[in-house]
Amino acid sequence: MSDRILMGHGSGGRMMHELISSHFAPAFGMEGMGDAAVLELREKGRLAVSTDSYVVSPLFFPGGNIGELAVNGTVNDLAMVGAEPLYLTCGLIIEEGMLIADLERIISSMARAAEEAGVRIVAGDTKVVDKGKGDGLFINTAGVGVVPEGVSLSPKKIQEGDVIIISGEMGRHGMAVMAERSGLSFDPPLMSDTTALNGLVRVMVKAAGAGLRAMRDPTRGGVATTLKEFAMESGLAIEMDEERLPVPPGVRGACDLLGLDPLFVANEGLLLAVVSDDVSQYLLTEMKAHPLGSGACVIGRALSAPAGKVLLRTSIGGTRIVDMLEGGQLPRIC
Amino acid sequence: MSDRILMGHGSGGRMMHELISSHFAPAFGMEGMGDAAVLELREKGRLAVSTDSYVVSPLFFPGGNIGELAVNGTVNDLAMVGAEPLYLTCGLIIEEGMLIADLERIISSMARAAEEAGVRIVAGDTKVVDKGKGDGLFINTAGVGVVPEGVSLSPKKIQEGDVIIISGEMGRHGMAVMAERSGLSFDPPLMSDTTALNGLVRVMVKAAGAGLRAMRDPTRGGVATTLKEFAMESGLAIEMDEERLPVPPGVRGACDLLGLDPLFVANEGLLLAVVSDDVSQYLLTEMKAHPLGSGACVIGRALSAPAGKVLLRTSIGGTRIVDMLEGGQLPRIC
Repeated sequence: MSDRILMGHGSGGRMMHELISSHFAPAFGMEGMGDAAVLELREKGRLAVSTDSYVVSPLFFPGGNIGELAVNGTVNDLAMVGAEPLYLTCGLIIEEGMLIADLERIISSMARAAEEAGVRIVAGDTKVVDKGKGDGLFINTAGVGVVPEGVSLSPKKIQEGDVIIISGEMGRHGMAVMAERSGLSFDPPLMSDTTALNGLVRVMVKAAGAGLRAMRDPTRGGVATTLKEFAMESGLAIEMDEERLPVPPGVRGACDLLGLDPLFVANEGLLLAVVSDDVSQYLLTEMKAHPLGSGACVIGRALSAPAGKVLLRTSIGGTRIVDMLEGGQLPRIC
Repeated sequence: MSDRILMGHGSGGRMMHELISSHFAPAFGMEGMGDAAVLELREKGRLAVSTDSYVVSPLFFPGGNIGELAVNGTVNDLAMVGAEPLYLTCGLIIEEGMLIADLERIISSMARAAEEAGVRIVAGDTKVVDKGKGDGLFINTAGVGVVPEGVSLSPKKIQEGDVIIISGEMGRHGMAVMAERSGLSFDPPLMSDTTALNGLVRVMVKAAGAGLRAMRDPTRGGVATTLKEFAMESGLAIEMDEERLPVPPGVRGACDLLGLDPLFVANEGLLLAVVSDDVSQYLLTEMKAHPLGSGACVIGRALSAPAGKVLLRTSIGGTRIVDMLEGGQLPRIC
């Protein structure tokens, strides 16, 4: 038997069935070969649905790999609307010639990440493309969750005077991948922050109630792009204080070396929340008691004007307008 | 502005936002840039969830393109468990350099197919990979539907004496793609059968009630592979009559020319149903009254033995065992 993926593994026939039944189904606890899973939905509430494809290069990077990234990323997309993530699907596009051992490691990571996040991978699909028509592995995960009654988050709910909270340090995922890709090493090593945030979100939803207006995880495009989305969708301005931005020294050093701005660097285990000022202190206390929120802090606030703009108050006292990422400073980071 | 996709279109920044807001969001009727959609689930019942990635080559083929294929395929996966498909997600992996005009045509097809199937595309994701690391476009669609109360389909429910119904002609999608890829043309042209089957399934569920045991659409791997799945999952044998298999002359001719067996050729608008003998005639009458079921017919039956096997009764009176597709006779057909 080949130790590499062949075109026949994507044919729908015997080789694909064996690949699935010997490698994927046991890892994910799946039964049968049907194309759709049927699930009891015990929880009450509205449905949250999301999708994300992962094309990160390289597939393995310090602190993680494409598999756990694909699980955590979709869990987080659901968590950002206040949903309890329940079910994921997994679509694999494998390049002919991929080592089956690498695929197995990635699948194991997905299974472990799903277990840690408390979600089930319930449906999957496997395609194989010719050598030179893919890049090792692309993974799509789609997710289904339930938004508890009473929870309704949207940038449209942001009000003047609300504060912006960040859950921890910025820029770790993007710089870990870029360092790996550039062949740079740092001491201590830069590690991706990939993790599932649904546990932290559960604490936040409980602590802040209706004071929690909106959440988003600043992945591709980084903190600046997410704040710009908040500004545009709310019709308000978002002001942030440069001095308060939690950029760890390793990320700052790597950004300096590679000519990147940490404001635009991707994160995969970080969230930005906009909350009413009156609940912010209690919320911060509750967040800090959670392992993923121990570094939570306020980085800015919503202002009435200039509408749709993000302002950065610099450490030397000036103010500059921050726009979205132009072009592609960090390709294939997730 | 470039008429081609650039790496920056996948960066998460301004270019991606413009691509989505000017091309994708209007086509799909989406609002906002959030990563998860929140939906009211008015229908009662269990949830059906599925996923499928599409890597068909070429992207455009007689009778369709990758976009409508991606919508119809996932709608059909949901319909095969008896679900009413409601929501789809759409994940695009675009190769740098793709013509934006081609992408637009494909997105329009997706929107039209979704409308025709009565589903909404509610969440999306766009990634761009470097030229030479993809192949134009890969699409993942995941789907969510609701299985009405009382409907429960599974190959495990198949009983001895049940009959196998096929909804129409075999082999059209696979041979249309293969003909296009080989540069062959036929008169009349071979057209893909890609279509959404949920309307036909609704009629079938109503007509057959508990007499409907299982359904599956014979895509990759073709009719033979699906019947083999039925045999293995039920622990029964499936016997089919070669003379009854509805292989249209164009498909037969193309298969002869290319050395392929229509039993293993992919379909994208066809279903196989296993039903109890006593409801089969009424069900066939109802199916024939639907435009997508006008060619419905019985092609075989479930036997007690040999367990897990598919038998083909040939036109000259013999019987041979049919196994799953070995290897990759038809790569990248969907």
